[in-house]
Amino acid sequence: MAATSAAARAPCAAFARCAPTTSIVAPRLGPLTRPASLRSTRGRRSLTVQNAVKYDYNTKVFEKELLTFAGSEEYIYRGGRDKFSKLPEAFAGIKQIGVIGWGSQAPAQAQNLKESLAEAGMDTKVVIGLRKGSPSESEARAVGFTEEAGTLGEVFDVISSSDFVILLISDAAQAKLYPRILAAMKPGATLGLSHGFLLGVMQNDGADFRPDIDVVLMAPKGMGPSVRRLYEQGKTVNGAGINASFAVHQDASGRAADVAVGWAIATGAPFAFCTTLESEYRSDIYGERCVILGGVHGVVESLFRRYVAQGMSDEDAYLNSVECITGPITQIISRSGMLGVYEALDAEGKATFDAAYSAAIGPANDVCREIYDDVACGNEIKSVVNAVSRFDRYPMGKIDETHMWRVGAAVRARRASLEVPLNPFTAGVYIATMMATVQTLQDAGHPFSEICNESIIEAVDSLNPYMHARGVAFMVDNCSYTARLGSRKWAPRFDYILTQQAYVAVDKGTPADAEALAAFKHADVHKAQETCAALRPSVDISVGGDDDSTGVGAGAARTEFRSQAVLA
Amino acid sequence: MAATSAAARAPCAAFARCAPTTSIVAPRLGPLTRPASLRSTRGRRSLTVQNAVKYDYNTKVFEKELLTFAGSEEYIYRGGRDKFSKLPEAFAGIKQIGVIGWGSQAPAQAQNLKESLAEAGMDTKVVIGLRKGSPSESEARAVGFTEEAGTLGEVFDVISSSDFVILLISDAAQAKLYPRILAAMKPGATLGLSHGFLLGVMQNDGADFRPDIDVVLMAPKGMGPSVRRLYEQGKTVNGAGINASFAVHQDASGRAADVAVGWAIATGAPFAFCTTLESEYRSDIYGERCVILGGVHGVVESLFRRYVAQGMSDEDAYLNSVECITGPITQIISRSGMLGVYEALDAEGKATFDAAYSAAIGPANDVCREIYDDVACGNEIKSVVNAVSRFDRYPMGKIDETHMWRVGAAVRARRASLEVPLNPFTAGVYIATMMATVQTLQDAGHPFSEICNESIIEAVDSLNPYMHARGVAFMVDNCSYTARLGSRKWAPRFDYILTQQAYVAVDKGTPADAEALAAFKHADVHKAQETCAALRPSVDISVGGDDDSTGVGAGAARTEFRSQAVLA
Repeated sequence: MAATSAAARAPCAAFARCAPTTSIVAPRLGPLTRPASLRSTRGRRSLTVQNAVKYDYNTKVFEKELLTFAGSEEYIYRGGRDKFSKLPEAFAGIKQIGVIGWGSQAPAQAQNLKESLAEAGMDTKVVIGLRKGSPSESEARAVGFTEEAGTLGEVFDVISSSDFVILLISDAAQAKLYPRILAAMKPGATLGLSHGFLLGVMQNDGADFRPDIDVVLMAPKGMGPSVRRLYEQGKTVNGAGINASFAVHQDASGRAADVAVGWAIATGAPFAFCTTLESEYRSDIYGERCVILGGVHGVVESLFRRYVAQGMSDEDAYLNSVECITGPITQIISRSGMLGVYEALDAEGKATFDAAYSAAIGPANDVCREIYDDVACGNEIKSVVNAVSRFDRYPMGKIDETHMWRVGAAVRARRASLEVPLNPFTAGVYIATMMATVQTLQDAGHPFSEICNESIIEAVDSLNPYMHARGVAFMVDNCSYTARLGSRKWAPRFDYILTQQAYVAVDKGTPADAEALAAFKHADVHKAQETCAALRPSVDISVGGDDDSTGVGAGAARTEFRSQAVLA
Repeated sequence: MAATSAAARAPCAAFARCAPTTSIVAPRLGPLTRPASLRSTRGRRSLTVQNAVKYDYNTKVFEKELLTFAGSEEYIYRGGRDKFSKLPEAFAGIKQIGVIGWGSQAPAQAQNLKESLAEAGMDTKVVIGLRKGSPSESEARAVGFTEEAGTLGEVFDVISSSDFVILLISDAAQAKLYPRILAAMKPGATLGLSHGFLLGVMQNDGADFRPDIDVVLMAPKGMGPSVRRLYEQGKTVNGAGINASFAVHQDASGRAADVAVGWAIATGAPFAFCTTLESEYRSDIYGERCVILGGVHGVVESLFRRYVAQGMSDEDAYLNSVECITGPITQIISRSGMLGVYEALDAEGKATFDAAYSAAIGPANDVCREIYDDVACGNEIKSVVNAVSRFDRYPMGKIDETHMWRVGAAVRARRASLEVPLNPFTAGVYIATMMATVQTLQDAGHPFSEICNESIIEAVDSLNPYMHARGVAFMVDNCSYTARLGSRKWAPRFDYILTQQAYVAVDKGTPADAEALAAFKHADVHKAQETCAALRPSVDISVGGDDDSTGVGAGAARTEFRSQAVLA
């Protein structure tokens, strides 16, 4: 799921179609930045991100480091407040940064940037762009962005006067407005995106970015309030913000990577991983449809129903499905990975896990592959754009009012007195869904930093804790349109296929699949996840309960959930 | 759902993208055939079929008639054995007709054509094209198509030597092979399709038909065995076959309509309705995802679960959901339309129907519009093509082994002793789903002959009776890939949205929606359906039960279900 509900808008000229044999859209790169092995054929998209691609963007300003994730190497850039002294060189020539929008990411990024640039002794202005009369104007003024100071203005005025435009408006708004926004940009300016969604839209439209501008991505792996809170908390410890991925998509100036890495560091990222716009939007939109949101919803609906049919009380069924996943399973994975859950089971529990995992991994993979293909070929983005155009007649309804979620509210209300079991069947099904999410990304050639973030870390360190506080369906109802539409579409698919195939197989007594279990137990993602965990900033997960009207606690990371408390 | 599991392959040059503002792909028409109001802009597809388009294809050979469907006029062509004398003129210059494939449609169409041409005293040969070593060769020989007689040959040999190539291979095979097939065709030949699917594939591929050939559609509104059986039965009564829709997509010769209408009449259609390839594939692929297959599956899963949760026994829940729809509701709609069901209820039943219909029509429409948009913009076809390419690793599993369908088998086994109720809640939900299917097609501008066939007639006169004999999930498991994939994808969506929104609303006591009910009661589709019913051939629905290994009875019409008994 995108670290931002906001995104980017830009000039045009890539195009769209989907065929398994076509190659990836290559970034336009200037002399200094050159990814190692992207094919240059433009105009088509492959169904897989290039296998064995090592994304490698070079800057003369910052030093890269080579890191090993389970035997696979990735370049990363290390952040920290001690790097702020290099920001004047990274942002050379940039007199004004326009931050467009005021959703989840914009308040955080704008304030962090402003303070980092000041710390570096720069006079570069950070200016917020909002439509006239936007209710967000007062919020921006409240944190010091004002018309009087020249740091708050109308969207297109700010775009046309900025050297670096950071587009943080919603996916839907980007899809609608990008031609106008790109046209308004200064010659030679830099466009900054925090989600690759716009590239997907433009590929579907047969559009491409204006050739004279630089296009970069910097996607924090957490929601805006966390990006801000951790930046503030980190001031005394040389930075403790949210990690980010970054990319250079088009490098007209030859200096785009300087800006991209500078942006990550100025925003507070302790580490910045390399990706591409395409790899980012694929993994993000895919991940939220799989285990992160849609998958977990389908899993718990199917398990709750199964347990009730087997004779459990509603409360016990809820405890053994939802609470078990969002509670103990999530905590164990966060601390000691997926294998930690397995190790926590006794022999009988392991046997139950084995049977459940074996039966579920195939069906879960089936749906995950379908989702990946649909995201990669542009279908999902096209469907989101279509859906948004129907909202006037068919607004999305809430999904958390069914019986199961009313049971959930009752369970949470008396949680203190309830014991949440580590149900081995639930663990097997859930971890199979997580592994299927991982395996598909691996097969498609995504880097491990991205795989771990979009399949595991975002689940166990961000969304699952929130779901624990409010229920899975409520979480879905409160995500961005892109995530919410995707979850509504795919959750029922996971539910049906698990019910129709996995549970039928288990009930028939189908023996555990030794090969699938060995593949799980020896998967290199476990090792890669350890490396990612070591780079992870210490995030204080603190999520409000049913009575907390401010939504997610400010410390909860990695989701684009739009809390009312955008200025926590 | 397509009347054929077979389809068409052809030269290339239309193209693909999807935006709500783009216009329909216009057929290439010669001097004699000219649809009234298709825009000629090529290269883009609109999300709606042109509103108020009256498809109008003229031939000098056959006479058209103007028919009124609820105030909306459509041209039709009347068939019958008395028209066979005109076939030599319609097929002038066609010395060989190549029928490619041997699925559901090919055996029927090939035999009917051969006998009709003989009856007309023509020496035009009908030749079957199969790949070398195909297991179908022996079946073709058994009904008189042989290498010795020059009426059975290798696919590409037959294609390159035929003046009229009727492509009746599967959707997936068409998608894969069309470039080669189109390239093999004789200059100036005619390509015949029985499903518009190929056009959708080619639009996604940015491909177009070779400009020198004619491209026509003739889509029987029934499965192959019915096309054959009724042709045979009709020999003594001037024909009693299956109605068809037809279209001229490209008319290089100026005589394509002669061939298209001649094809319909020679195959035994009593009436031929005008459509376009695009209108046909949209309504067909959409309809099978909605009430025809996916919709009814989602409806019964959600209702069965609801009734069990309300305290019904499994058997009663099955009788009140599946059996009620596939039994009494289907019979009443077939005889006296959707309003007939309403009229059959007492006052209390009507009130229950009103509440259920009111709550379900909005959510059902929500999903139907999404499906239509996804079909119209090419997403669904692209997903089918992607899925077929995954079958080697992820073959589709069966879906009819869950508890509910085991209950169904038990119910059917002792059906004779059971009374099937006309449950008014079930009726309200099912008819809302049917009306949503209808309303979306109406809003998209499809002609009433097509709307009634793809939403109502195919359901109540073909698939529902079959589902009554074997269960809904079994029916899904035995449809073509295109239908089956679509049903697996969309059934759970109908289930979830009805459960999450419609049933929650009913349980909250939401009052019935007078406006929605008035729109239902006064809908013009009821009148149009009466007209369609009057044109419908008398089809003897006779479907085998659980012990009948030959699949659907030969008299069951209007589905592409692939019975083993293709030569019934």
